[in-house]
Amino acid sequence: MFQEMSVTGTPAFLRARRSGTPEHHRTCSLSTGPPRGVLHVVGTSLKAILNRSAPPSSKFFSVKCTSNVQYSISPPPQETSHLSPIPLNGNSVLLIRMSRASQFENDSKLSVRYYGENKEVLGKAVLHLTAVEISLDVDADRDGVVEKNNPNKGSWKWGPNGHGAILLVNCDSERSYGKKPDTEQNYVSRVSDLKDMSVMVLRTKGPAKLPEGYKLTMHISQGDAESVRVFRSGSAEAVNNSLHKLFYNYFVKDYPLVLSSEVLSQEVPYLGGVAEMTLYVEGLRFPDKDFNGLISINLSLLEPISAGLPETPIFTDRVVFRVAPWIMTPNTLEPVEVFVCSTSDNNQFLKGMRNLVGKSGYKLKICHEYVNRGDRWMQDELEFGYIDSPHHRFPVVLDSPRDGLLLDFPYNELLGPDFGYVTRVAQRKDVSSLDSFGNLEVSPPVTLNGKNYPLGRIIIGVAFPTATKGRNMTKVVQDFLWAQKVQEPIALFSDWLVVGHVDEFMTFVPAPDRKRFRLLLASPDSGYKLFRGLQKNGHGQAKLFEGLRDEEPITVDDILNDESLQSENNYVQSCIDWNRDVLKRELGLEDEDIIDLPILFKLVEEEEKEYRAVAYYPDMVNMIVLGRNLGIPKPFGPKVNGRCALEAEMCSLMEGLGLKCTFIDDFASYHKLLGEVHCGSNVRREPFDFKWWNLEM
Amino acid sequence: MFQEMSVTGTPAFLRARRSGTPEHHRTCSLSTGPPRGVLHVVGTSLKAILNRSAPPSSKFFSVKCTSNVQYSISPPPQETSHLSPIPLNGNSVLLIRMSRASQFENDSKLSVRYYGENKEVLGKAVLHLTAVEISLDVDADRDGVVEKNNPNKGSWKWGPNGHGAILLVNCDSERSYGKKPDTEQNYVSRVSDLKDMSVMVLRTKGPAKLPEGYKLTMHISQGDAESVRVFRSGSAEAVNNSLHKLFYNYFVKDYPLVLSSEVLSQEVPYLGGVAEMTLYVEGLRFPDKDFNGLISINLSLLEPISAGLPETPIFTDRVVFRVAPWIMTPNTLEPVEVFVCSTSDNNQFLKGMRNLVGKSGYKLKICHEYVNRGDRWMQDELEFGYIDSPHHRFPVVLDSPRDGLLLDFPYNELLGPDFGYVTRVAQRKDVSSLDSFGNLEVSPPVTLNGKNYPLGRIIIGVAFPTATKGRNMTKVVQDFLWAQKVQEPIALFSDWLVVGHVDEFMTFVPAPDRKRFRLLLASPDSGYKLFRGLQKNGHGQAKLFEGLRDEEPITVDDILNDESLQSENNYVQSCIDWNRDVLKRELGLEDEDIIDLPILFKLVEEEEKEYRAVAYYPDMVNMIVLGRNLGIPKPFGPKVNGRCALEAEMCSLMEGLGLKCTFIDDFASYHKLLGEVHCGSNVRREPFDFKWWNLEM
Repeated sequence: MFQEMSVTGTPAFLRARRSGTPEHHRTCSLSTGPPRGVLHVVGTSLKAILNRSAPPSSKFFSVKCTSNVQYSISPPPQETSHLSPIPLNGNSVLLIRMSRASQFENDSKLSVRYYGENKEVLGKAVLHLTAVEISLDVDADRDGVVEKNNPNKGSWKWGPNGHGAILLVNCDSERSYGKKPDTEQNYVSRVSDLKDMSVMVLRTKGPAKLPEGYKLTMHISQGDAESVRVFRSGSAEAVNNSLHKLFYNYFVKDYPLVLSSEVLSQEVPYLGGVAEMTLYVEGLRFPDKDFNGLISINLSLLEPISAGLPETPIFTDRVVFRVAPWIMTPNTLEPVEVFVCSTSDNNQFLKGMRNLVGKSGYKLKICHEYVNRGDRWMQDELEFGYIDSPHHRFPVVLDSPRDGLLLDFPYNELLGPDFGYVTRVAQRKDVSSLDSFGNLEVSPPVTLNGKNYPLGRIIIGVAFPTATKGRNMTKVVQDFLWAQKVQEPIALFSDWLVVGHVDEFMTFVPAPDRKRFRLLLASPDSGYKLFRGLQKNGHGQAKLFEGLRDEEPITVDDILNDESLQSENNYVQSCIDWNRDVLKRELGLEDEDIIDLPILFKLVEEEEKEYRAVAYYPDMVNMIVLGRNLGIPKPFGPKVNGRCALEAEMCSLMEGLGLKCTFIDDFASYHKLLGEVHCGSNVRREPFDFKWWNLEM
Repeated sequence: MFQEMSVTGTPAFLRARRSGTPEHHRTCSLSTGPPRGVLHVVGTSLKAILNRSAPPSSKFFSVKCTSNVQYSISPPPQETSHLSPIPLNGNSVLLIRMSRASQFENDSKLSVRYYGENKEVLGKAVLHLTAVEISLDVDADRDGVVEKNNPNKGSWKWGPNGHGAILLVNCDSERSYGKKPDTEQNYVSRVSDLKDMSVMVLRTKGPAKLPEGYKLTMHISQGDAESVRVFRSGSAEAVNNSLHKLFYNYFVKDYPLVLSSEVLSQEVPYLGGVAEMTLYVEGLRFPDKDFNGLISINLSLLEPISAGLPETPIFTDRVVFRVAPWIMTPNTLEPVEVFVCSTSDNNQFLKGMRNLVGKSGYKLKICHEYVNRGDRWMQDELEFGYIDSPHHRFPVVLDSPRDGLLLDFPYNELLGPDFGYVTRVAQRKDVSSLDSFGNLEVSPPVTLNGKNYPLGRIIIGVAFPTATKGRNMTKVVQDFLWAQKVQEPIALFSDWLVVGHVDEFMTFVPAPDRKRFRLLLASPDSGYKLFRGLQKNGHGQAKLFEGLRDEEPITVDDILNDESLQSENNYVQSCIDWNRDVLKRELGLEDEDIIDLPILFKLVEEEEKEYRAVAYYPDMVNMIVLGRNLGIPKPFGPKVNGRCALEAEMCSLMEGLGLKCTFIDDFASYHKLLGEVHCGSNVRREPFDFKWWNLEM
């Protein structure tokens, strides 16, 4: 019913307890007649407009009450004693408060006497008062503990001085067999599942029972209900013996579902006395174009009227959560596991990778052929990330809509306990090569015109905005990435490449100085400069591609004499320079933060008279970064004194940063298929130390 | 292609000229070889990374250029004269600028000489430069004039110190016959239509023609294309004689369509010399849940590469518009026209209205029966509002999805030249009585906890958020209202009424003091107090409903003795008090800003055992407010000394505010059908003096 408000504004109803807003007043009538029972919530006040319900001709009034009741009169009476009748005027208002919860129903009283001109009594209004304390509590100060009645619990603010509770999307699977993301079942499958949820506590204090007909109701808007479920811990009496309890633990009755997309409003029990009821809030979906990530949960106290009339909410407490965004991890974070595929033809590559990962001290995970079915592009099918909250954190894989033969790997092999899964489904016709996640990268932390990006910025590749046609990353994935907000994306131009991935011309490596990283860019100009230098120094007859099967060697002279190749590479350099300018602007880089790598490209005719670029020799920028060790496609460049000049140049450029180059032969099994080391691998990394909610937005 | 970015973030591509960002640098190569022609845009700079394209073994370089070219070298050379060779190091960068447009192609030159160890010349790179000035301009300072190259034109900021251009939804119809909103045709039907659009000017300066292959392209994202069209003034040579021109004026060829949802990117002519091309930007839709109202239009200069390769954008200028929101007008604004329906049975009412409107000096517009087909609820079918921009303003009717027999009135009778039309289409099953616009009101300007609402706040009625069932205003209309942003809505509880409209229990009237208005609320307590006073003063036998046909009179005593009626009214008072508390909180009101009107209600059984309220006698709060004149439903209350006690009380309450009450008999033709004067009328009012873009958001 209220879906629109949670998205587009805060419902006016629900603002009573928001930080900074004044105390909640409830207007009530104070008519003569039989005593009226009133349930009062400590921390609010009742406001009686005296004149409106006074007997006609009333001119004075007086007030009496028991000790747990405080009242004030507005405008303040002149007389010093409230016991003598006070003049009643058109604006006379009585404000009633109670400072602590009642032990018994109607244990407090307040009465108002109305008098006529001659102070004769015209009538008496009596309230029988019962006070309760109610607070719906969350971890609004983000320390992992649910504090009591945080004044900021009803709103959400970014930053180290911010506030507001955090919710995880429960996108892992507690089960390893017959598994599916926990969000897809509307029950708590295991007790261990509770740690993926945010604890919410309903604290109440008052008499053993609420007065007849009053009840507590928890409610959410229809819009929010798509994004959240609430469970509560079941009552102890439902479970009597431990075998029974064991059964229940697995079959859920211990944690009844309170709110979901089917049930937007439900009564929750009032436990009586001093009580705490634990509830568990489960996030169901990530922020996206149509969901800003904020969710409100409300608890109202309802007053009965009579049958056939809706109960009136007389008090509403409200808490706000933000769903944790999905966060990517740049090359500068510590690796945990390296993933590669094993295929019938990539033994050489696997050997190189095993060697590199082993000596770097990380875990190598091999996806075997019965799973990968020959699809070796481990980079392209998925992106590793994580979600984080003060109470829990776990890795989450984003599954690409690319859906090559590896398509089942993320779900079947990665999803599991404390390993989440998320995807975005696109129509086949909208999916292009630009949807592979070699086209989805993230920068290390940067600062740009004074704005900090402590989690870096996401980088994707698309077509020129001026293009009347061209390939693009599909809208549903782009929408998802932008909606996470904490790593504001940058769109580069990658459609000039046949494969069209940003990892074909750029990567980031750690550095000891400056911004703690360097941007590496493929540079045909640098390549030509290197080859011209070789020629000049008498190595014009040195050959590329020597010793490779099925590949014709070519001399440096022949390359330099190929005018068409030169002009193709001028074009490629202009495309990369265009991206260089965007990256400098959007990451706040200087030229000194960028290293040009000597890499040539060539153009191939894709459709009739439409040309796009591929790497001329193994594309060294398409590397895997494991701490200080780089796994680089072996370029098979011209040899000078027995050493590959391209490798030598690469090593010399990286040495100054304290980085070690390992060249991996991916020529036949990857390069010839238009990918390289990076395309054929994936790295799960440690999360950032920086907490996303401390971002200043 | 880029739809997602305009909504979820600014495309990195397009930030070059945003205010506060540094000058746009374009990286280019500077290789030795034949001279290279380069087109340069004044205000940007070319950045050549010297080392990367220098001949191998280069150790020094020198630079020479013609007078229109400026350059700087980074890091700055030690030598005082640039003419002696400068040491070349890994970071040497040459920044090239041109300060004014060229008169002829390649009229400027720059050359770089590279030297070896012994200062022998190794090569020379020559650029042939042509400079152009390009600026896409809008009225970013909101004074109605398109200034030149406003530094803030690429962003939008609210407030009196804000900036950013404004767009109207072209939702009126230039034609009165065969009409439809102008947004529904993709051509300029009349020259008069241009004033509903925002002028945009493309200013260029340079040689007579751009160098071969370069071109100017205007482009928008796919997302923005749903919300905007761009036309340009056609070239003069296309039209040779005046008859021809007349024809074209009507049939559009003078204003070719540049951009639309079908054409996201199109070349625009470069006119040569000093030129201005006028373009017209047409808004197509109002802000809504999926559209924040911001639109970007880009102009890029494209550099040719060669056939089969996409042209590279080497410069992009960008302007941002915000679509003007739809704005409602509260009772405190000056009326222009009053609308009522004529039916077979409402002569008495019409007489009263004619009299009231006539003496107030406004225009009465009568909707005749052949149009209204017996549907008399003029308030419910539509809401009058307006849209405003620095260049133009006109009224816009919001057509309700209620769609009673009046459904064609807003489109057929109101839409026209400078009278806009907007609606939101809902499924029949989602439409309830709460979708009638008696349930859509707006407050006068208010201030709340220091936040100003100089255009007031929209007020709608819905069900309690805690209700498990209940009626509501349909989502599409609520989304629309919230998305306008400038009159942030408040949701009240109105589902307790049979008809369910907020105008059944509240209205606003102008006042000379305090907040310049009072909130009037129906109050059963006040009603009972008045009747008890009558009884006490010996008028218990005075009768309500005297002299009415088909209505049984009832005495004051009988009313006061009806205990069931008393408890029904206690419930109604609690519902109204609940809304009173929300209104006080959300409008920043004090009790002194509110006047209680003596009005009783009764409950009727709607469905089995479900009760809702209707007015017991004509509901005086449901009035029409025309300046200082109020048209109030004649209550037919008990007479004291020949004067209706309810009318007397009403007059006495309003007199203090300088307001004049006119009581209009709507008993048989409106009250008995569950509506009153307000439900049966509508008022088009003058717009606010306050300009919405001056809001601080």
